[in-house]
Amino acid sequence: MADQFSAAIRWHGDYLELLDQRKLPAEEQWLPCHSSEQVSDAIRQMVVRGAPAIGISAAYGIALAARALGERASLAALAADFDALAASRPTAVNLFWALDSMRRCGQSLSGNALVEALSAHACHIHADDVARNRAIGTHGAALLPVGKAVYTHCNTGALATGGHGTALGIIRSAHEQGTLAHVYAGETRPWLQGARLTAWELQRDGIPVTLVVDSCAGHLMARGDVGAVIVGADRITANGDTANKIGTYGLAVLARHHGIPFIVAAPCSTIDLSLASGDAIAIEERDSAEITALAGQPVAAPGVDAFNPAFDVTPASLVTAIVTERGVIREPDDRALGEHMRD
Amino acid sequence: MADQFSAAIRWHGDYLELLDQRKLPAEEQWLPCHSSEQVSDAIRQMVVRGAPAIGISAAYGIALAARALGERASLAALAADFDALAASRPTAVNLFWALDSMRRCGQSLSGNALVEALSAHACHIHADDVARNRAIGTHGAALLPVGKAVYTHCNTGALATGGHGTALGIIRSAHEQGTLAHVYAGETRPWLQGARLTAWELQRDGIPVTLVVDSCAGHLMARGDVGAVIVGADRITANGDTANKIGTYGLAVLARHHGIPFIVAAPCSTIDLSLASGDAIAIEERDSAEITALAGQPVAAPGVDAFNPAFDVTPASLVTAIVTERGVIREPDDRALGEHMRD
Repeated sequence: MADQFSAAIRWHGDYLELLDQRKLPAEEQWLPCHSSEQVSDAIRQMVVRGAPAIGISAAYGIALAARALGERASLAALAADFDALAASRPTAVNLFWALDSMRRCGQSLSGNALVEALSAHACHIHADDVARNRAIGTHGAALLPVGKAVYTHCNTGALATGGHGTALGIIRSAHEQGTLAHVYAGETRPWLQGARLTAWELQRDGIPVTLVVDSCAGHLMARGDVGAVIVGADRITANGDTANKIGTYGLAVLARHHGIPFIVAAPCSTIDLSLASGDAIAIEERDSAEITALAGQPVAAPGVDAFNPAFDVTPASLVTAIVTERGVIREPDDRALGEHMRD
Repeated sequence: MADQFSAAIRWHGDYLELLDQRKLPAEEQWLPCHSSEQVSDAIRQMVVRGAPAIGISAAYGIALAARALGERASLAALAADFDALAASRPTAVNLFWALDSMRRCGQSLSGNALVEALSAHACHIHADDVARNRAIGTHGAALLPVGKAVYTHCNTGALATGGHGTALGIIRSAHEQGTLAHVYAGETRPWLQGARLTAWELQRDGIPVTLVVDSCAGHLMARGDVGAVIVGADRITANGDTANKIGTYGLAVLARHHGIPFIVAAPCSTIDLSLASGDAIAIEERDSAEITALAGQPVAAPGVDAFNPAFDVTPASLVTAIVTERGVIREPDDRALGEHMRD
């Protein structure tokens, strides 16, 4: 139960530890969470980020809330905790998926039986995510052109998931197979997940990585340096439209212009068949101070207006393939996703 | 002679003052330059940046070198100063244009006559740039869709030129005419010219501006929020290919994908008919520390590799129009540029 599946999330049975991703790579500081409030605060403040990691953390948050109630535990008594965790980040569907899964697991249980079931189920969601990412890695690595560089955006690695990673899981698997030449990591403004997290993860694994500013992607593609673009996803709708970190859409347009495969990697829990298309996805807008200040220092004149959407939507028509733990969806559309998700 | 044409370059007859753009917007600090060495250092270290402003500063650098020689002044004695200034930044052709212009002006002169001629000519280059930018502004403003937002990249304003600006000159002129709805300024990593300089300039002029991260451009275009993209240029080759700040090429691809006009604004001194196409342009690579650290603080793990080209090349086929002080070149190609530059 206290197995350490991941580089960023540690469950100790009676409390959760989250690697504070705001402090990386300068410091590896672990934040202990003893309550679901602490977990939802940590999600909102981006101590933990990445759609799958948010889902796993929220599941542990429910487990903590149940423990605190003990004999008095019931799904009704946990309703406020479910609501607060669901409200912590609006775009990542894995969060709602994990909470639903926890709710289903607790159905018809109460008291200590519920506490134990929810703890075990949170651990199961965590371990399961790692297994799914391994499968995504295997399916996706087969899609990459051999001996070419791959461009990735944001962080979709061990830090963003239960372990191994989604898009970075494919990169890791291709590296294990010896077919990967090089990784270009876009720094991913404003939060610099690429610089702070992806480059750090890949460097630790000995995978050759070069960091670039986000706007360098087109130049690299025009030079013929990029064989594929791989990204993760925060939500994929029934027709294959994909919400992911701001900048993903621009990369998809560039990849199409250069005839380069654009691959989305995500567990099936990211696919939300309840939404017909990307138009229906709520895009989180974050504080403009994330753009106007850096490391606490202002980089724009006082009072300058800034617009800071955390995500954008890439239409399915620009996606070459979606890779899940079940396999590869080529030319994603309603029919292909429906078939992929059957039973 | 000591007229103040610009917000960033002040000539005092016996020394030059440059507004230190590395310190903006936090501090308005002026760096006095008494020698051509100080001017070439200032260009290399980006105290002054922007292709036209670099050319003007280099001209004043030659004027300072000539003053120091006084009676002994000759073009031969100034050869090392010309060389050092020419080597300060490799991509901006205005630098070479301004130095050539100074050299031609000094032909057959020596001693104090040369000193006076070079000083006067540097002032002329400066004043002339402002007049050219005014003309660019008028020609370009007529191209903008009325009542729509404009997206711009990097800084092409008073700080980047002798005054008024090139792409920002068009924005200023459109604002004066009341036809401009709004400006989106890309922050322009790694140096943040958009956040630090463009937003600051526009805010001072009361022009409504919203700052975004560079990778947000596609999202804004997909929402229908952008009526035109306007950028400057560091060098335009005979066929209309355009070298400009890294990220420009990606914006051109996005604009084409969305059917949005992509407009390049630059004085004729930016057009280099000696180069057939963009393939021949030397792209300056700058220190990777500009990406791996911010405000002196590391943002990537120690030793992470980074690739930092300062510019990219946009093929003429993606450029809707080039605007110079002479007018508008639509669908730029060899023939159109050759005609535009005749006599």
